[in-house]
Amino acid sequence: MTPYTPPTQDQLLAIRVNAGIEELQKTDRFAHAEPDLVEAIVEGVGQFAAGEFAPLNRVGDLEGAKLENGVVRLPEGFKEAYDAYVEQGWNAIASPAEFGGQGLPFTLACNVLENLGAANMAFNLLPMLSVGAIDALEHHGSKEQQAKYLPDLVSGKWSGTMNLTEPAAGSDVGALRSTAEPIRDGPHAGKYRITGQKIYITWGEHELAQNIIHLVLARLPGAPEGSRGVSMFLVPKYHVNDDGSLGPRNDLRCVSLEHKLGINASPTCVMSYGDNGECIGELVGQENRGLAAMFTMMNNARINVGNQGVQIGERATQQAIHYAMDRVQSARAGSPDKNPVAIIEHPDVRRMILRMKSLIEGVRALLYYCAGQVDRGNLGDSAAKVRADILVPLVKAWGTDVGVEVSGIGIQVHGGMGFVEETGAAQHWRDSKIAPIYEGTNGIQAADLVTRKLGLEGGDPMIALFEEIARDAADKPALAALATDCAHVARWMRDEASLDDRLAGSVPFCTMAAVAVAGWQLTKQAEAVANGAAPALATSKPVTVRFFLDRIVPEASGLKASAIGGADLLYSLPSEKLAG
Amino acid sequence: MTPYTPPTQDQLLAIRVNAGIEELQKTDRFAHAEPDLVEAIVEGVGQFAAGEFAPLNRVGDLEGAKLENGVVRLPEGFKEAYDAYVEQGWNAIASPAEFGGQGLPFTLACNVLENLGAANMAFNLLPMLSVGAIDALEHHGSKEQQAKYLPDLVSGKWSGTMNLTEPAAGSDVGALRSTAEPIRDGPHAGKYRITGQKIYITWGEHELAQNIIHLVLARLPGAPEGSRGVSMFLVPKYHVNDDGSLGPRNDLRCVSLEHKLGINASPTCVMSYGDNGECIGELVGQENRGLAAMFTMMNNARINVGNQGVQIGERATQQAIHYAMDRVQSARAGSPDKNPVAIIEHPDVRRMILRMKSLIEGVRALLYYCAGQVDRGNLGDSAAKVRADILVPLVKAWGTDVGVEVSGIGIQVHGGMGFVEETGAAQHWRDSKIAPIYEGTNGIQAADLVTRKLGLEGGDPMIALFEEIARDAADKPALAALATDCAHVARWMRDEASLDDRLAGSVPFCTMAAVAVAGWQLTKQAEAVANGAAPALATSKPVTVRFFLDRIVPEASGLKASAIGGADLLYSLPSEKLAG
Repeated sequence: MTPYTPPTQDQLLAIRVNAGIEELQKTDRFAHAEPDLVEAIVEGVGQFAAGEFAPLNRVGDLEGAKLENGVVRLPEGFKEAYDAYVEQGWNAIASPAEFGGQGLPFTLACNVLENLGAANMAFNLLPMLSVGAIDALEHHGSKEQQAKYLPDLVSGKWSGTMNLTEPAAGSDVGALRSTAEPIRDGPHAGKYRITGQKIYITWGEHELAQNIIHLVLARLPGAPEGSRGVSMFLVPKYHVNDDGSLGPRNDLRCVSLEHKLGINASPTCVMSYGDNGECIGELVGQENRGLAAMFTMMNNARINVGNQGVQIGERATQQAIHYAMDRVQSARAGSPDKNPVAIIEHPDVRRMILRMKSLIEGVRALLYYCAGQVDRGNLGDSAAKVRADILVPLVKAWGTDVGVEVSGIGIQVHGGMGFVEETGAAQHWRDSKIAPIYEGTNGIQAADLVTRKLGLEGGDPMIALFEEIARDAADKPALAALATDCAHVARWMRDEASLDDRLAGSVPFCTMAAVAVAGWQLTKQAEAVANGAAPALATSKPVTVRFFLDRIVPEASGLKASAIGGADLLYSLPSEKLAG
Repeated sequence: MTPYTPPTQDQLLAIRVNAGIEELQKTDRFAHAEPDLVEAIVEGVGQFAAGEFAPLNRVGDLEGAKLENGVVRLPEGFKEAYDAYVEQGWNAIASPAEFGGQGLPFTLACNVLENLGAANMAFNLLPMLSVGAIDALEHHGSKEQQAKYLPDLVSGKWSGTMNLTEPAAGSDVGALRSTAEPIRDGPHAGKYRITGQKIYITWGEHELAQNIIHLVLARLPGAPEGSRGVSMFLVPKYHVNDDGSLGPRNDLRCVSLEHKLGINASPTCVMSYGDNGECIGELVGQENRGLAAMFTMMNNARINVGNQGVQIGERATQQAIHYAMDRVQSARAGSPDKNPVAIIEHPDVRRMILRMKSLIEGVRALLYYCAGQVDRGNLGDSAAKVRADILVPLVKAWGTDVGVEVSGIGIQVHGGMGFVEETGAAQHWRDSKIAPIYEGTNGIQAADLVTRKLGLEGGDPMIALFEEIARDAADKPALAALATDCAHVARWMRDEASLDDRLAGSVPFCTMAAVAVAGWQLTKQAEAVANGAAPALATSKPVTVRFFLDRIVPEASGLKASAIGGADLLYSLPSEKLAG
């Protein structure tokens, strides 16, 4: 496996141009996000990720997380790397200063995750899930809960998890059956007795952090059926005493680990709560409002998963370029020189490399554009908040689809060596495949786009986005055509299509929209580079942007027929006939 | 993993409509391919594959092939299943009657492979590679070699391998370094001493067959450099006495097995020939004409790999449909009925299933159309031979790309369960990924399309194919547009584009062309079904064909910009800058 080289220049460009960090720095809240600090963070975390997380990626895949007598073991080196991560303060980038965080923009937290995840996608899930727990407590925890739990979560001394899924409650979280029984008397009076089994709990058990704060969705007695009867509970692995020291172990355990296609170093746990009737949890936020609380952090979590597409794609691209420059095979076709050349000199290999690179730069531009809108939304800019809401499903769904595509091309560049596990190219592809599934499948993202997000302010903000792109791209015919198509589809979905029609076209529309926004954001990068913004990218950026606009954008236009094809055809065949 | 249900009706439809078996049966050579026999074969091999090969697919993945003291061990059951396969005569379908074969059309051999491979892709590589050895000896072996080796290869008692690749000779086979030294005296006079190491030798060592006939490419002393100095040698694992009995073991061995992403039950061997200077082989065909001999069988081998796309896609589709009909989650969006439904009722899941099904039916139609043209070519129809030559890269490249795409969608349909290995959905995806690589990467296929195949008879037959489709599709606007685009690209490539331009656009063009031909062949199926050809498909076929024409065909049109984009952009960035 090729070492990880942080794409610092491209990240800084995206942070400046697409997230607009300099504008953010002009606000009181982010005044300390000065250019020097931003650069120091991006460079620093890149180096840290390359030096500490990346070398563990292959061994993490080969050995994986193992469950031994209820304890999850990671390969050698993970504990030391995590300790160094905590010590250097990378976990605390975007958390509030009052809990020990640095209070920096979400944009920079994205960059920390991008580097850590490109270095080691499976390992990075540990910090990534903790961020979700921090967000939840920050927004919904009581003052006491925040004071008690947040500092050690923010530092990374403790980690956090999300416990939603149960065997019969996947995409339909509201179907869950775990219960919480109020405790009236005794030392735990006011708390709850939690009972139930949860599946797919990422980093649900491990020994890298000193404690694990599980956020568990469960039902109170007599709670309404479905999603309106779900509450959120904080369930620590070790009880926490009032002085902050750790008490005895809570009644919860990891029953088993999943045997997965990839991200083998990330323990995916089946968790059992209350086997002995003694699992104690605290209510977070209001009764029966657990799902709403979960949704608060879902936007960021989904962006973070879309970010994984950038991560794995970047890593796979570096791996492929390294191989293609190293592997010598065949002379150039039609060349008088009959000496074999590095395969990157062959036209189709070059096409593959350029496609990988352009796609990843496109997702990165979209990712940081979205992150910048989130930061503006957090500062009270409501138009930015709406735009961020619209962008989230694009980042998550298209970003992760691109991660799979690009890492797949990476294997192809390697030829036979790509199918052999030793090179590591195959690991990237296996790892990539979880991202379109978790944190809401990409189908769920697309459904969100054409229902909730299209419904925001009557659909005008979404249509305005595409019209803005079309205007800006007046001299870029393919992009203008795609943006116009997107506006057309959005209008059709809003004004004419049935709900089924919208859902039937949701995934192709989501891809079209994402490519349009990414292409648009790339043109902004190209303009900035032309104006001297990133001398190191002066040669390459115009090429990758043109490749994206000329070759990838027209493909997305090819999806229009599916986006507006409607649902009738899908239902013209009874389900049993599909199986025949 | 869901059991395999042979799609017998769709296979028979493709064999009749796209391969035109009834026309073949009117010839002397295939007069015995009567409708009853065809049906008996398709049904019989489907049942055999489902009953004997399919149950071994999962265990083959989990346990895999293992090398123990030079012997390759397969999981329990493989030997018995292979014996049954030989005993029932499935190996001999298309081989000449004089060597014990049934002399049936290649079309039917395709169907045997389709069923066996859908049941167990890794296992099916054993018969598939033997077919190549049989083809080579049939076309290039001496009468003596044919008499000595073919009967037991045809029956399947022995298996065969192809030994081309060496570490420094992959896509560039001509770079190989293995040697063959003529033996002047002694018991092996007239034969050759073979020395060298070969990699990626599929089923290079195993104990299922009684002997293994390796066809090894090597260089004679003083042979010209490159591909003009390569000869083909027959190197048996056990020497064969003149009476056909087995003699002592030859000096060759399996050094190691590759640790692969998929097809774990197929031993991918590093083979060493002549460690002790005593590896004896016979020349097959003429000196220095080994590569030409290899090319004889390459067309069929490539079709057989394209067939694997159908196989894995079919299996993944069945798996996904089974899961989607079984898994109950969430009520239909917008429905007054709030009860959860099987996920196949949700619009986007239905879209995924229909996409999988339509794509696979499209590749199957293309595959059998191509097979029928091969059969006509073998009967002396030179126009059909040219058409088959043009179709081969489409079948291989697009067929295998679809295999990967469809098995990937299969995982997505499963949600989280797809990422967990237990369901088997992930295995299909891992298995599928070898097919775009071996037997000439898909990039090599596309290069073949825009160079050698476009060059056939000055390009007229290729352009005529697209014009024929455009004419036939006059009432199907998307298909007519795509076919017209294909004709346009082909003309541009022939008349205007540089070699680099052609290669730069080769892969997108190959996909466009394949989708156009597949769509065309599907319309022929739809017409036949409308005329009563396959009552069992009367409800489903019109829907899958319409889905293909309305939704998949327009996507392919989106590739035109890449097909004619040219090479300049690719080379406007020096290789070092790509890495930056």
